[in-house]
Amino acid sequence: MGTDALGGFVSGPLALADAALLIDLYELTMAAAFLREGVTGTATFSLFVRRLPPERGFLVAAGLEDALEFLRGFRFSADALAYLRSLRRFEPAFLDYLADLRFTGDVRAVREGTVVFADEPLLETTGPLIETQLVETAVIHFCHLQTVQASKAARSVLAAGGRTLAEFGLRRTHGMDAGLKAARAAYLTGFDSTSDVLAGKAYDIPLSGTMAHSFVSAFPREMDSFEAYARAFPDSAVLLLDTYDTVAAAHLAVEVARGLAAGGHRLAGVRLDSGDLAGLSRAVRRILDAGGCPEVEIIVSGGLDEHDVAALLAAGAPIDAFGIGTRLNVSADAPSLDMVYKLVRLAGRDVLKLSPGKETWVGGKQVFRRLDGEGRLAGDTLALEEEPVPEGAVALLETVMRAGELLRPRPTLAALREHCAGQLAALPPGLRRLRDAAGDQAAPSEALRARQESARMWVKERALQ
Amino acid sequence: MGTDALGGFVSGPLALADAALLIDLYELTMAAAFLREGVTGTATFSLFVRRLPPERGFLVAAGLEDALEFLRGFRFSADALAYLRSLRRFEPAFLDYLADLRFTGDVRAVREGTVVFADEPLLETTGPLIETQLVETAVIHFCHLQTVQASKAARSVLAAGGRTLAEFGLRRTHGMDAGLKAARAAYLTGFDSTSDVLAGKAYDIPLSGTMAHSFVSAFPREMDSFEAYARAFPDSAVLLLDTYDTVAAAHLAVEVARGLAAGGHRLAGVRLDSGDLAGLSRAVRRILDAGGCPEVEIIVSGGLDEHDVAALLAAGAPIDAFGIGTRLNVSADAPSLDMVYKLVRLAGRDVLKLSPGKETWVGGKQVFRRLDGEGRLAGDTLALEEEPVPEGAVALLETVMRAGELLRPRPTLAALREHCAGQLAALPPGLRRLRDAAGDQAAPSEALRARQESARMWVKERALQ
Repeated sequence: MGTDALGGFVSGPLALADAALLIDLYELTMAAAFLREGVTGTATFSLFVRRLPPERGFLVAAGLEDALEFLRGFRFSADALAYLRSLRRFEPAFLDYLADLRFTGDVRAVREGTVVFADEPLLETTGPLIETQLVETAVIHFCHLQTVQASKAARSVLAAGGRTLAEFGLRRTHGMDAGLKAARAAYLTGFDSTSDVLAGKAYDIPLSGTMAHSFVSAFPREMDSFEAYARAFPDSAVLLLDTYDTVAAAHLAVEVARGLAAGGHRLAGVRLDSGDLAGLSRAVRRILDAGGCPEVEIIVSGGLDEHDVAALLAAGAPIDAFGIGTRLNVSADAPSLDMVYKLVRLAGRDVLKLSPGKETWVGGKQVFRRLDGEGRLAGDTLALEEEPVPEGAVALLETVMRAGELLRPRPTLAALREHCAGQLAALPPGLRRLRDAAGDQAAPSEALRARQESARMWVKERALQ
Repeated sequence: MGTDALGGFVSGPLALADAALLIDLYELTMAAAFLREGVTGTATFSLFVRRLPPERGFLVAAGLEDALEFLRGFRFSADALAYLRSLRRFEPAFLDYLADLRFTGDVRAVREGTVVFADEPLLETTGPLIETQLVETAVIHFCHLQTVQASKAARSVLAAGGRTLAEFGLRRTHGMDAGLKAARAAYLTGFDSTSDVLAGKAYDIPLSGTMAHSFVSAFPREMDSFEAYARAFPDSAVLLLDTYDTVAAAHLAVEVARGLAAGGHRLAGVRLDSGDLAGLSRAVRRILDAGGCPEVEIIVSGGLDEHDVAALLAAGAPIDAFGIGTRLNVSADAPSLDMVYKLVRLAGRDVLKLSPGKETWVGGKQVFRRLDGEGRLAGDTLALEEEPVPEGAVALLETVMRAGELLRPRPTLAALREHCAGQLAALPPGLRRLRDAAGDQAAPSEALRARQESARMWVKERALQ
């Protein structure tokens, strides 16, 4: 087996022969019943987040390119079909139908890195009902993960105010796939590097790393460990100071820095990983400066999240870089989003569900975004797809796939990162707050409200008979 | 590319040519410095959870078999080495060393499905320092994910008191890897089925599924959708009742059930996915029973976790089965554990770090577990590896790999599930509580305390010079 498997796994699931089985069983049973009954009209499904978690004022849409790649390569392999046959739940005619099935629909989507709010579609599919239904699980799966991660990462970017940010969370991320995607999502929103070597390879993200406590304790004396590391990496060494006593270790770091300088090299930095990081960073900065090492950077880590970053900087801690790990990568305060993929139109008829608290907006939709005179986000309208773009607004969704074919090459991560930076720069102060953010929600257009009301009446008259 | 890639991905990362790059950069820089300095003694690393989250009274160890498979196949591919070379951070001698590197150490581990507490090793590696250091990220990564998931899933198993449990969370799990592993971890702890078709195929877990709201709304009338589904699956149909009005739909379900019965078939169940599930389940049960359908099961779902399961059953809700999704699969209340992999011994010397709040126990260790007269867990001792097993206690860690070779075949998931059932049955009432569980912690042995104290003295005398 070559590296294609990994390449495909990284950029999308195409290389996995069984990727089409990344599906909830009910997608298949519903599809079988649709086929049997000839319910095969053109459907539109809308992917959106119903409600934002209280800890989020906005979301950063991500994972869409993986979803598109999945749709482009969607097919059931002979091996997958053999497994489905072995379940003895499906008629042979349905399995034969699956063997030839491809995704032939259209997709409209926002660009990855776009700021979105509750009810705003990240993506809509339009195509034959069975195809658009069958891809539900995977489309949510790909978009949910990275939207969770990017929405969390963007908060550290806002909090850090330009300081360097390194994503360090691989070891406690939920699996290999999520580890890679966390590095990508963090970089998308403005992180500078990752510790995840596989992500560096897969996405060409700059790598960074320091040393672990085990390195220090592997040597009889702390100073031996520092000198050994400096010998190995005379221009990029970052020394970890808190294995035994952070302040004492800072004095050793000064000695190491002087030794490196004498040889024409330079100690890159020191890392603090425990204790009172604000107080220790000040003490260590004073020691480094007094020792003639003002250029040695201070990096802090240790279970940090965006609130810690903001608090440390608000306290005036002289920190140059933050290593953010577990709480970013699992999105500890909001590990999931109420992201759904709902049927909104079928065979020319608007469709909705009325479940308490879960009513969905009908029809294919568009989001119109208005910016104020300073280029800041001033408000969104949730409109019907066919409504004209209002003067001065931009439409967030564009057609990216037609009849199963992508209309443009996959954007580079660098281009998406630049787009995301523009999106974050356009956030008004009320949305930049880490707590109690405004949580702006799109206002429905008049036309959408009218269509919703008539669909509701139709359902009450017909569906419940 | 064949299905081996997926098979390998599922059962472990071996088929991924670049799996060795599932690593934090600093593992490689430390290894390079160790090699350069000749610091290559025999090391012991210990994998454990420092503190349990407040929401957990115990953990279920899982993911260990994946970690072992990773260790067995650990190697840097030519492609991985080419990438590392391209970074221009490493000397050619180090890259040559990596090309030949395999994991040649020993591993002692608890069995998957074993209940463990804070500070208790799930796994310990002993072998050459560089090898045992380099696998840190991956070992944590594999064991952390499934231990998080299994520890969460076990709580639903305890809450459900024997009712049927289906894992439904694929779509909002953090990635493909985590989706598969969530299904496995849930089944390991006692869940009955998963909706994840790929997990069914990979792990031979029973599949279950019902229908989505889109199925109901795709038909002009709700009754049309129910009849269509019943025609397609006359012996296994579960009808979703809450698309428009749950109680009204229950009456339709009775009609469908009667129609099926007339043809010698049987409606399997109905699902409630929103609203007051306790009240609605009672109302629906009454309608079903009054309609002559006492055998039709009631399945509930909709953002449930173990607390909802317990509350519904405590309220006497007539529920036969629970579909548990997102909050299980992301372990919403505790999405990460403070799991670490720490150097505890090197070249015959005990090693520890003194970082505030993060001091580690020295030495290779063992956990001795005592059971009371009723077979219930009565207390654990955290001991040194070489201590004799106390009378009446069992040792939890056993040697499973020697010199890089597995000592026994991979246990079947069925065998591990049975082991886990025994572990959960042995939990005393204080540990079975969903809130404020006792959170028993292992008591250190006298010998361990003594060794710890002398290592602390040694560090203070020597390492800080």
